[in-house]
Amino acid sequence: MTMRFTSEQRLDDGVVERDFTLGEIPGVLWTPASASAPAPLILLGHPPLGLRKMYPRLVARARAATADGFAAATIELPGSGDRPRLPAAEQARGNLRRAMEAGEPVTDEIIDALILPLVDKAVPEWQAALDALLSLPEIGGPVGYSGGVISIGIRLAVVEPRVVAAGLFAGSFVPRAMFEEARQVTIPLHVLLQWDDEGNDRQAALDLFDAFGSEEKSLHANMGGHTGVPQSAGVAAAQFFTRHLK
Amino acid sequence: MTMRFTSEQRLDDGVVERDFTLGEIPGVLWTPASASAPAPLILLGHPPLGLRKMYPRLVARARAATADGFAAATIELPGSGDRPRLPAAEQARGNLRRAMEAGEPVTDEIIDALILPLVDKAVPEWQAALDALLSLPEIGGPVGYSGGVISIGIRLAVVEPRVVAAGLFAGSFVPRAMFEEARQVTIPLHVLLQWDDEGNDRQAALDLFDAFGSEEKSLHANMGGHTGVPQSAGVAAAQFFTRHLK
Repeated sequence: MTMRFTSEQRLDDGVVERDFTLGEIPGVLWTPASASAPAPLILLGHPPLGLRKMYPRLVARARAATADGFAAATIELPGSGDRPRLPAAEQARGNLRRAMEAGEPVTDEIIDALILPLVDKAVPEWQAALDALLSLPEIGGPVGYSGGVISIGIRLAVVEPRVVAAGLFAGSFVPRAMFEEARQVTIPLHVLLQWDDEGNDRQAALDLFDAFGSEEKSLHANMGGHTGVPQSAGVAAAQFFTRHLK
Repeated sequence: MTMRFTSEQRLDDGVVERDFTLGEIPGVLWTPASASAPAPLILLGHPPLGLRKMYPRLVARARAATADGFAAATIELPGSGDRPRLPAAEQARGNLRRAMEAGEPVTDEIIDALILPLVDKAVPEWQAALDALLSLPEIGGPVGYSGGVISIGIRLAVVEPRVVAAGLFAGSFVPRAMFEEARQVTIPLHVLLQWDDEGNDRQAALDLFDAFGSEEKSLHANMGGHTGVPQSAGVAAAQFFTRHLK
């Protein structure tokens, strides 16, 4: 897929923000204000709510990453933003909403239909983005993956050797099949868990952490709900990437 | 109780190490190489194996603390080192060893007999040490408590208002009664858990973390056994104390 830059702006702290398209997929690349050597890259994952809606949180994460000397990039997820909807996922999303509003259990079928097609479609796109991004002179390697839909992070960690470290957020539904994939993950992992996450099963998150095959994995649980990740957790995650990507 | 310094030496990095006695209780105080203002204090907890045996690990933790501008201090636990044995705890220790060697469950009775008398006797001693240490001009406040027998840390956090933050290691047996005390803890907590700790029940450690009443509490789980705490965990704990004691 061809990558085309569509706009460029310099943020107030000097970070260069460039919108791009990768084929039909919109994306954003942030590079540090001053970089003497090619910067290692952190891929910024995000929930399937659309890049535009996620922009404030993404740019905050990108500023933190570039301040540490990393480039940061993200692409729109399949079915989100202006991209064509994924009918199976849309239907699953409706079923999920109805189940949660009715106080009914969220079944494995709903979770599978919601997540698995998204993972299957998204992961090759992130790999294509990596091909394009790593061909830029200002970006070197190695690559880290951070946050977003945890199942996408798991699959990427398994299939993409250029991703050498991952910071994952145990904050979304995980299909049972992904627990098997988790056992195949061997790269260093930094896993965030919000102890009182409304939309998340704490025990499932602990089981998933236990399942990861990585020799180096670390679980950081903090108080509060899904969006209450404390600032100190961001600092610890940044240090994780600095240890493993530099 | 009267505090008397019995020896003083300057370590190679300039840290001043002073042995002292507090009544009959031996202790060690470390102060930073250069301190312009009174230093906040971190109390270094340790397992009941005797200060002499624990010295290499304690001095390493003290060096890290003083490098961050803290004073650090520790005292011998009741029944350890050269102090008179606690008969009930000695008997419980024998029962514990026999149970573990026989592959039998470690009963609540054994754990209670092992830990509760130790906590009851140790905590007032640590408070007396605080009285003496905080009267020194080179030590200010606030005070943090770090590591060692977690039940001592829990009790101190509940009863001692001068302790404003605690870094606890979920790596020792916890009497059921301490879960109730844990609910009364309200100071910020940084809790370490070794995911594969041989001598520790992981689920009990997670339940204990859940029980703490603190609004700000953070669980950091790392791979490996009891003594395998990675260096990065020490860095995160140091940042926790810097956030809360400075």
